[in-house]
Amino acid sequence: MTDKKLIGVDLGGTTIKFAILTLKGEIQQKWSIETNILSDGQLIIPDIIDSINHHLDMYEMNSDQFVGIGLGSPGSINFEQGTIKGAYNLNWQDTPVHPVRDIEKGTGIPVTIENDANVAALGERWMGAGNNADDVVFVTLGTGVGGGIIANGNILHGAGGAAGEIGHVTVDPQGFMCTCGKRGCLETIASATGIVRVARDRASEYAGTSQLKAMLDDGQDISAKDVFDLAKENDDLALIVVNYVCESLGFALANIANSLNPKYVIIGGGVSAAGKFLVDKVDAAMRKNEFATIKSSTELKLASLGNEAGVIGAASLIKVD
Amino acid sequence: MTDKKLIGVDLGGTTIKFAILTLKGEIQQKWSIETNILSDGQLIIPDIIDSINHHLDMYEMNSDQFVGIGLGSPGSINFEQGTIKGAYNLNWQDTPVHPVRDIEKGTGIPVTIENDANVAALGERWMGAGNNADDVVFVTLGTGVGGGIIANGNILHGAGGAAGEIGHVTVDPQGFMCTCGKRGCLETIASATGIVRVARDRASEYAGTSQLKAMLDDGQDISAKDVFDLAKENDDLALIVVNYVCESLGFALANIANSLNPKYVIIGGGVSAAGKFLVDKVDAAMRKNEFATIKSSTELKLASLGNEAGVIGAASLIKVD
Repeated sequence: MTDKKLIGVDLGGTTIKFAILTLKGEIQQKWSIETNILSDGQLIIPDIIDSINHHLDMYEMNSDQFVGIGLGSPGSINFEQGTIKGAYNLNWQDTPVHPVRDIEKGTGIPVTIENDANVAALGERWMGAGNNADDVVFVTLGTGVGGGIIANGNILHGAGGAAGEIGHVTVDPQGFMCTCGKRGCLETIASATGIVRVARDRASEYAGTSQLKAMLDDGQDISAKDVFDLAKENDDLALIVVNYVCESLGFALANIANSLNPKYVIIGGGVSAAGKFLVDKVDAAMRKNEFATIKSSTELKLASLGNEAGVIGAASLIKVD
Repeated sequence: MTDKKLIGVDLGGTTIKFAILTLKGEIQQKWSIETNILSDGQLIIPDIIDSINHHLDMYEMNSDQFVGIGLGSPGSINFEQGTIKGAYNLNWQDTPVHPVRDIEKGTGIPVTIENDANVAALGERWMGAGNNADDVVFVTLGTGVGGGIIANGNILHGAGGAAGEIGHVTVDPQGFMCTCGKRGCLETIASATGIVRVARDRASEYAGTSQLKAMLDDGQDISAKDVFDLAKENDDLALIVVNYVCESLGFALANIANSLNPKYVIIGGGVSAAGKFLVDKVDAAMRKNEFATIKSSTELKLASLGNEAGVIGAASLIKVD
């Protein structure tokens, strides 16, 4: 048993990442393939099966050597039936696909599935910034804002499977319209696209001197990274934008911390590349909105695993404690 | 085993409530004694022991007939050591008391302890409005605002024991100063004292016709119940106050629901006596701030157990599932 291995699979809209890990979470092999979303995404599961079988052959391993396969996936998961639907970036629409049944049959290895944001949270908790704590809140700032909440050592799903969808916490009831249909969601402000939206909004009423303003007026495409880079150089408008983004994020995360008192709140995703500059500002905003016990027992950290969080967290689904 | 019983003890600043329950949560006997907080609260634990032993004698029962005693208490609990300190309404200050050790010794029955707001949450979940669901958020609107969060079937404590302290969620960063040291906590608005504070604040800038305004100008003492009663009669100022209170409560609870997606959010405590009038307004405010999955899978309800939530929840601590 002790030398058995885990397989973690991180299924995304562009690539599918794979890893073979020890029971202690060390990655021994990793590889990735492109996600083929043609033919209504019907090739995805066969591609996963072929890729696993091919690599096990290559490494001269067989299914008996594995405790299981953990799969992180976008979309809406039915845990009882092991099915997924509504993963629109995979072209998986309203007809459920059966990754658990099909991958088990195709590889001979037991399969467990979980939401992609949740596996990233589990990965950071297990081998990253989460230090294996029982109570961890993970927020990922990418194209959107996602998240995962681990409480008493378990990932939370909630009554409708939407626990941890921190991106739709309301920050400003009079704020920007969100794709979810309501106003002022954290995602409209603190995602990569949200940051650019805030920049355009603030630029339209800004009259001072700013390179960010000049770039926008010039019609250049700007990114969240541009905004943070300019803010680090004390660009006036960029600082206004970044301060608003960090205040909003700090307000939302402080209230989650006030309710759950996690050991760690971990920020990951592309926007988190802004690093300590981001964390210091968000931390200050959080502390302003937290009561004493939270300030002394909940800590804000940057994610540390990067792209590997998904495969590690997926593998953690089937590890034996 | 199946005919063994549970004892639930709800320790409050004024009374200590006791109940003997079946394993199914039915109350078979209940009684209460006054809380004697003299002599630094040193008489409280001996009083609990005497009262339990006296009643077991009276009912011709012995310690072997009980699975255990569950105790709900205010203050800061050390679960590993079974001690409590900082329960200021009991005069338990910084020296830890040992209810687990002492009550076990004094009665011969195993003891488990839990925070008082958490036992009320567990009680409502088990035998009240919570329908034994795995994910329940309970908020109690009394002199203060407290709460308890049950996720995946477990009460959450968090890293510093402060999980579920919903009263200190920040609603308005520029709002009233709270006893906790920061501004705009839910407790400053939606507790019984908070509602009166909001009423006084709004009255000072109100110029229309209102009985509530007349009462305040007349120097009468008003209660949260007065404010709700007048609002139900369409008193203009009272409606302004109640609408602000319910908007604030709905905003805070919606964001907890957006993060945790519980099956039920349950409102209890004295203020919840305002009933359907309160729930309808809070529900409308929640729905405005919730995304679709939450609206369709999280339900707001009134607590149904009243004063018995504490003893039932305390007893649930030691029930065997």
